[in-house]
Amino acid sequence: MKISRIDHLGIAVQSIDEVLPYFENTLGLKCYAIEEVADQKVKTAFLKVGEVKLELLEPTSPESAVAKFLEKGGRGVHHVAFAVEDGVNEALAQCDEQGIRLIDKTPRAGAEKMNIAFLHPKSTVGILTELCEPQK
Amino acid sequence: MKISRIDHLGIAVQSIDEVLPYFENTLGLKCYAIEEVADQKVKTAFLKVGEVKLELLEPTSPESAVAKFLEKGGRGVHHVAFAVEDGVNEALAQCDEQGIRLIDKTPRAGAEKMNIAFLHPKSTVGILTELCEPQK
Repeated sequence: MKISRIDHLGIAVQSIDEVLPYFENTLGLKCYAIEEVADQKVKTAFLKVGEVKLELLEPTSPESAVAKFLEKGGRGVHHVAFAVEDGVNEALAQCDEQGIRLIDKTPRAGAEKMNIAFLHPKSTVGILTELCEPQK
Repeated sequence: MKISRIDHLGIAVQSIDEVLPYFENTLGLKCYAIEEVADQKVKTAFLKVGEVKLELLEPTSPESAVAKFLEKGGRGVHHVAFAVEDGVNEALAQCDEQGIRLIDKTPRAGAEKMNIAFLHPKSTVGILTELCEPQK
């Protein structure tokens, strides 16, 4: 797998409105997009810091994986997303071969017109890990 | 505060030796430095992904904050470190003024010849947050 950079950090929050002042006024970052991802039952807000995006994730339903993460006491970084240069499909095949547990066997659509797939934290040092690439 | 980029993600691990094969063979990253930080009672291993470093943190004592994090069931990302351009001291003063809870009131020495200071996760959306700059 060829990873070029961290694409984004997914950060679980109860309310984007409540936490944006911290990111904008204290850290001095700027929110440049708000987008709802129906598939994942979240509202997202994006800020950029260097080459990495912070993706704030607010659940829009109690069924959302992010809602469950927060309910279990999870806080802060929900997942780390790596940009793969040689394609998500190929990276998934390689992970599968190496015995890494996959959450997604094939890529699906994420926010910001990306193809994404998740690896299971049991296989990835406890970090819910996303692989992503721009949709063609 | 002027943040230029994410300097590193601190990742708590029980054993660097055990997890390095995942980072190197599966993710294809390269460990370029191993360093012990006596002050924080951890051994660290550094890998680079784009402009961000991954800092693997293995506790060297049960008294280490990282050991306690792991003991309480914490996994994966332990802290996020932002590189501040206008100095850690100034950033801390600004945070203090804005009512952000500080763990360190003044910067101290971290790995890789950096001055570092931590903000308390209660004030930072649940993310243990480090501010850092190269030592002069």
